Amino acid sequence: RIDGDRLWDSLMEMAKIGPGVAGGNNRQTLTDADAEGRALFQRWCEDAGLSMGVDSMGNMFATREGTDPDALPVYVGSHLDTQPTGGKYDGVLGVLGGLEIIRTMNDLGIRTKHPIVVTNWTNEEGTRFAPAMLASGVFAGVHDEQWAYDRVDAEGKRFGDELERIGWRGSEKVGARKMHAFFELHIEQGPILEAEEKDVGVVTHGQGLSWTQVTITGKDAHTGSTPMPMRKNAALGMARVLELVEEIALSHAPHAVGAAGHIDVYPNSRNVIPGKAVFTVDFRSPELAVIKDMEARLRAGAEKICADMGLEVAFEKVGGFDPVEFDPDCVQAVRDAAERLGYSHREIVSGAGHDACWINQVAPAAMVMCPCVDGLSHNEAEEITRDWARAGADVLMHAVLETAEI
Amino acid sequence: RIDGDRLWDSLMEMAKIGPGVAGGNNRQTLTDADAEGRALFQRWCEDAGLSMGVDSMGNMFATREGTDPDALPVYVGSHLDTQPTGGKYDGVLGVLGGLEIIRTMNDLGIRTKHPIVVTNWTNEEGTRFAPAMLASGVFAGVHDEQWAYDRVDAEGKRFGDELERIGWRGSEKVGARKMHAFFELHIEQGPILEAEEKDVGVVTHGQGLSWTQVTITGKDAHTGSTPMPMRKNAALGMARVLELVEEIALSHAPHAVGAAGHIDVYPNSRNVIPGKAVFTVDFRSPELAVIKDMEARLRAGAEKICADMGLEVAFEKVGGFDPVEFDPDCVQAVRDAAERLGYSHREIVSGAGHDACWINQVAPAAMVMCPCVDGLSHNEAEEITRDWARAGADVLMHAVLETAEI
Ligand SMILES: NC(=O)NCCC(=O)O
Ligand SMILES: NC(=O)NCCC(=O)O
Repeated sequence: RIDGDRLWDSLMEMAKIGPGVAGGNNRQTLTDADAEGRALFQRWCEDAGLSMGVDSMGNMFATREGTDPDALPVYVGSHLDTQPTGGKYDGVLGVLGGLEIIRTMNDLGIRTKHPIVVTNWTNEEGTRFAPAMLASGVFAGVHDEQWAYDRVDAEGKRFGDELERIGWRGSEKVGARKMHAFFELHIEQGPILEAEEKDVGVVTHGQGLSWTQVTITGKDAHTGSTPMPMRKNAALGMARVLELVEEIALSHAPHAVGAAGHIDVYPNSRNVIPGKAVFTVDFRSPELAVIKDMEARLRAGAEKICADMGLEVAFEKVGGFDPVEFDPDCVQAVRDAAERLGYSHREIVSGAGHDACWINQVAPAAMVMCPCVDGLSHNEAEEITRDWARAGADVLMHAVLETAEI
Repeated sequence: RIDGDRLWDSLMEMAKIGPGVAGGNNRQTLTDADAEGRALFQRWCEDAGLSMGVDSMGNMFATREGTDPDALPVYVGSHLDTQPTGGKYDGVLGVLGGLEIIRTMNDLGIRTKHPIVVTNWTNEEGTRFAPAMLASGVFAGVHDEQWAYDRVDAEGKRFGDELERIGWRGSEKVGARKMHAFFELHIEQGPILEAEEKDVGVVTHGQGLSWTQVTITGKDAHTGSTPMPMRKNAALGMARVLELVEEIALSHAPHAVGAAGHIDVYPNSRNVIPGKAVFTVDFRSPELAVIKDMEARLRAGAEKICADMGLEVAFEKVGGFDPVEFDPDCVQAVRDAAERLGYSHREIVSGAGHDACWINQVAPAAMVMCPCVDGLSHNEAEEITRDWARAGADVLMHAVLETAEI
């Protein structure tokens, strides 16, 4: 069993870096706070006897040697970056839970045949630089590294420049590492486990995602002196598309969700009819056909709405991944671990995207989930209990021990 | 007759300061560009033999002495500040048109009994600091000066601090000046004069305005893992209110307009359901009862929409003025001038708010309008012809000469 109090203390310690405004965190990727969080994690890893490697995407790999020099490592981990108004556990639990299992093995003198590597993936959240899970995507060969470097944030800063600036562009070639398996512990971010009073979720699938950035172009004009029939109000067009997004997602309920989290209108002046609206529609479903259907209906519907209003509309796919089926053996290792430890559990489909979704393309992967209060995440009020964190990390350790072979 | 080419050259010279991105201007109030524009105007005034006074709101008053030391001055002018994506004429024509009539009087050796004062009012546009027409409002006693100083822009900077910073907080007590009359030349910003091929608009009334800032509060949550029925999507609530705004304005067509130009959602991250949306609804009508009706229906309708969605909503009135009836004698002076000069003209109601709307409360005031291409304003592509500018300034001069007495 892991040390639940030590894990909790580390979570609280990390949460001091990049505090939010309402008890959570704003430790967005490649900010100074991110650099500080990384440094703390590195120090803790060194204290635990691990050696750190960093690749050219800033992914951090802290290695505990195995007994067999030829055995590929078992990887665990998640991400330390947060949303701008994020919680203390989303991502962090998976990284510090990984560290905690190492600390526990050290305490108990447990050696494994396969090395174990605790990982912090860069820019999982995707808020500053879309898409989400950027660096694990490059690691898995889904994205080109140069393309990733060229992503820009809202202020026009490049990912590559910011990675360099905070001093975490490593020398290792990204994706060069081979993995025996990858396990990610993460909070559910949804309401199911808590509602059903399960200690642990055995993640069998992850739902797919599609991010479509929509740009509606009308005409800047005076809100007072422009007659209603002459207006080309891009914000009104956007309002109608937002209603359409809701309609489309509900038509597939409960197998789909949809919303726009990112919305900007231009020039954003009280007395100017917006000539431009830019927003990103986030559609998700465990079924690929549903995602395709939603994307197609969004495009056709928004085109019709805009044509009727004399507006122009353009679409850009800025992120996405297909629904994921995790590796059956790794999933079984998680299920066995929960069973062995006597934790109540159920199978679950991840509603969010995770680094494990990309890594699953290049190595056998699976995930362990713990409940979270009211299913609330991407909110500073995100909360879990000490017991839930402990149970999740216990299951992670046993799944890893089984896979890394004692 | 004024010198149309000299007026045009000055307009083009001023437009070089704070250039926009598409041929127009971004010379927002109390920016460095605003300070530069003010300095150029001051230099031109001094060259024309005028003496400059500046009040504690940064309003500029350039005086040409009259022949009767006891006669109150006739004021002319408008504003040099622009929208973030504004045109070269909105406001500027009224200030430089005022300067041009002085230059012409100098050339012709015309003296008037009443002094003539060319004015640049601070922060007419209201984009950086709501409400619009802020400094003429303080001058007219509508707003308290300290309250005006405490207005903040999107970055939290105070109006008073920014005025100090650019060095244009004058020593004169705001509103101390008494006026014999005030005349403002302005582009129409609407399509009527051009469509009817009139040279000049004789402005009899100004429509009233109401700015209501709406704040909808829901709950930040994950776009992927939060089930549709659990969502409190503030942006979707906003979309429905935007549709309501359109509906309300159209129900009073053609006697009302409505739109939201300013829209912000929080935390504005692609994978966070917005927990907060803040936007400003701009309603206008020449009839006070219509404005009151629109305000009431917005509040009631938005409350119903939000209650149905489990959202909270709050309202704040951030700007507004009642419909204006300009002074009949001043209006007659404008009409006589157009008639005398042989310019085609018609009576018109101003769709936009203007400094003259506030000044009309403390002095007899009226406005001259010139057409603008496609009725387009608050757009960098705003355009007028040299002939329209000339005709407007000619009419302004003759109305002023009649009122200031030769
Ligand atoms: N786990 C998580 O919140 N990841 C961010 C990517 C997503 O939007 O699903
Ligand atoms: N003339 C003008 O555009 N003034 C700004 C105030 C308004 O929104 O009407």
